[in-house]
Amino acid sequence: MNVAVIGLGLIGGSLLRALAARGHQVTGYDLSEATRQAAAEAAVQAAVAEGSWHIAADIPAAIADAEIVVLAVPLPALPAVTAALAGFSGLITDVTSVKGPVRDLLKGRRYVGGHPMAGKESSSFHASDPGLFDGCAWVLCLEPGETDLDDWLRLAALYTSIGARVVPATAEEHDEAVARISHVPHLLASALSSLLDGNPLAGALAAGSFRDGTRVAATRAELIAAMCGGNAAAVRRVLAEVLDHLAAYDAELASPDPVAALTSSLQRPGELRRAWPVVDGVTVRVDREADALLSLGRAGGWLTDIGPDIIGQRPESGRNGS
Amino acid sequence: MNVAVIGLGLIGGSLLRALAARGHQVTGYDLSEATRQAAAEAAVQAAVAEGSWHIAADIPAAIADAEIVVLAVPLPALPAVTAALAGFSGLITDVTSVKGPVRDLLKGRRYVGGHPMAGKESSSFHASDPGLFDGCAWVLCLEPGETDLDDWLRLAALYTSIGARVVPATAEEHDEAVARISHVPHLLASALSSLLDGNPLAGALAAGSFRDGTRVAATRAELIAAMCGGNAAAVRRVLAEVLDHLAAYDAELASPDPVAALTSSLQRPGELRRAWPVVDGVTVRVDREADALLSLGRAGGWLTDIGPDIIGQRPESGRNGS
Repeated sequence: MNVAVIGLGLIGGSLLRALAARGHQVTGYDLSEATRQAAAEAAVQAAVAEGSWHIAADIPAAIADAEIVVLAVPLPALPAVTAALAGFSGLITDVTSVKGPVRDLLKGRRYVGGHPMAGKESSSFHASDPGLFDGCAWVLCLEPGETDLDDWLRLAALYTSIGARVVPATAEEHDEAVARISHVPHLLASALSSLLDGNPLAGALAAGSFRDGTRVAATRAELIAAMCGGNAAAVRRVLAEVLDHLAAYDAELASPDPVAALTSSLQRPGELRRAWPVVDGVTVRVDREADALLSLGRAGGWLTDIGPDIIGQRPESGRNGS
Repeated sequence: MNVAVIGLGLIGGSLLRALAARGHQVTGYDLSEATRQAAAEAAVQAAVAEGSWHIAADIPAAIADAEIVVLAVPLPALPAVTAALAGFSGLITDVTSVKGPVRDLLKGRRYVGGHPMAGKESSSFHASDPGLFDGCAWVLCLEPGETDLDDWLRLAALYTSIGARVVPATAEEHDEAVARISHVPHLLASALSSLLDGNPLAGALAAGSFRDGTRVAATRAELIAAMCGGNAAAVRRVLAEVLDHLAAYDAELASPDPVAALTSSLQRPGELRRAWPVVDGVTVRVDREADALLSLGRAGGWLTDIGPDIIGQRPESGRNGS
C-alpha cells in the first residue's frame, strides 16, 4: 500500500521504518526540518537493510499519492494537520491516546481511529525502531453503523503485517480502557510520589515497591495532564472505582481483625495481576462483521491476520478476569 | 563479634554469609531441618571463599556463645522465638518490617529494633547472597532515654561493616515511613489491579505503566495483609493523604481547564520522583548522641562508618524534598 506518515517522532518514525521493511511505499513528513533531515539521512542507510522511504518537504507532497494517511502527531497538533488534509479523499487514521475527541474532530471524513500501546509520543525519531510494534496491541476503532468495514480491515491488514496485535474497540470502550490501564495509573503514581514531600527519611528507605509504583510520575506534568485532561470523564469514573477500593481497605484496617479482612479482599487483585499479561491465546476465526470483531476485543482478544480469513487469538477462558 | 542468626530465609541466610565473609563468628539456626541442612552444606563450600559459619541444632546451642542474637523470623513467629531467649542476657535485634509491635513485645529486654530494606522475608535460604546488604538502607531504632547507645552503635558497626547504610529512626518514625514507601504502595497496586476485573479489553491494552504500578499486587495476599495490618494506624494516616491527593486530582478534572489545573498540581510529584533516589550525599561527622543521630535520619541521611568517629552521608540540600 501507499502510506503517508505525518509526524516522525518515535511512533511515526518507527511506523515509517516498519512499513518500509514490509515493502510498502512510504512517505514521511515532519514539521521540524531537523527531523525531516534525520529521517532522509536514515532512509539512505536503510535502503539496503530494511527497504526505504521518501521524505516530503510539505504535507501536500507527502499525501499526493497516498491511499492511507497516518497522523502521528500529538493531540494538540491534530486540528491544524487535519485542516491541511482538506482535499484528501483517502483513508485517514491517527495514533493518539484518546479516541473520542479525535472521532469528533474527524466527523464526516473517511477516518478510522487508532492507538498503538507502544512507547511515548514525546520521544524523537532518533529512538525509532522498525520492531517497535512487534507483539504490541494496536487498537483500531470500530463504530457499528459508522465505520466503513473495508477501510477498517485495510488498516488491520497493514498493522498485522508489521506484527501488531490489532484490537477492535469502539472509541468509548478504548477511552475507558486506557483510563484504567494508563491514565489513572499515572495519577496514582503521582499521588504516591507526593508522599515523599517533607519526609526525606521515607525517601532514604524507599526501595522496589516505591520505585515501580511511582516510575511514571517522573513523566513531564504537561504530558500526564494532557492525557488525563483529554479523557477527563472516563478518568473520573475509573478514579471513583479506585477510591472505593481504597476506602474498603481503610475500613478493613479499622476492623477488629485487619489482617484477616485484608487477606480476603486482596486475593482477587493478586489473581488478576498474576494472570496478566495474557501472552498466548486460543486461535479463532472471526466473522467479517463489526459485532464479531468487537466481541473479540471485549473478550481480551486480538487479530493477527487479515487474509481471506480473519484470524485472531482469544484468551483462554478463566484467565485475565474473563 | 560473635553473632547468632535465628531464621535462615533470604535475610537471615544472607546475613549469615555476609557476616562470615567479614570474619565474624556466626552461628545460624532455622526451625526447618531442611534449611539447617542446606545452610550446613553451604558452610562447607563457603569455608574457603567467604569465611564460614556453624549451624546449631536448636536455639540454646545457637545462642550459647553469642554476644548478639539477630531474630530473622517473620513477625508472627517472634513471640515464640523471643520466649526461647528467656535466659539470654546479650543484645537482641530483629529484621521485621514493623517496629512498634516488636518494641512492645521486647519491652524490658536488651533490644534494638532493626529493618533492612532488602528483599522479601518470604524467600528461602537458597536465594541468600552475601552482597545483599551492600548499599542497602538498614534502619536501627533509637528511642531517646530508652535505647542503650553503646548497644545501638555496636549493631551500627556490625551492619556498616557489611556495606549497609545504617539509618537512625525511632520505631514510630520507621513505621510511618514504611507505610509511605512500602505498605500504602502495595495497597495502591492492589486497587489498580482490581481495575482489570470484568474488563479483559483493558488487560489486553495494558502495558508499562500498568505493569510497574501493579507489580507488587502479585505478592501473596497474606503477606501484604500482615504488613499493612501490623501497621494499621500509620497505614490509615498515609492512606488518608493519598485519598486527599486523588480527590484534588478529581476536582481538577472537573474544573473548566483540567489540563492547566493538573499540569500545575503534578509538577511537585514529578520533581520529587526525579530527585529520588539520593545516591550520594555530603560526608558528615555525627556526634555520639541520640538526637544528632536521629536528626541525620530525619534529613534523609545514613551512617557508613562507626569508628572512633561516626561518619555518615547527608543528602545535598534542595534534593529529595528537603
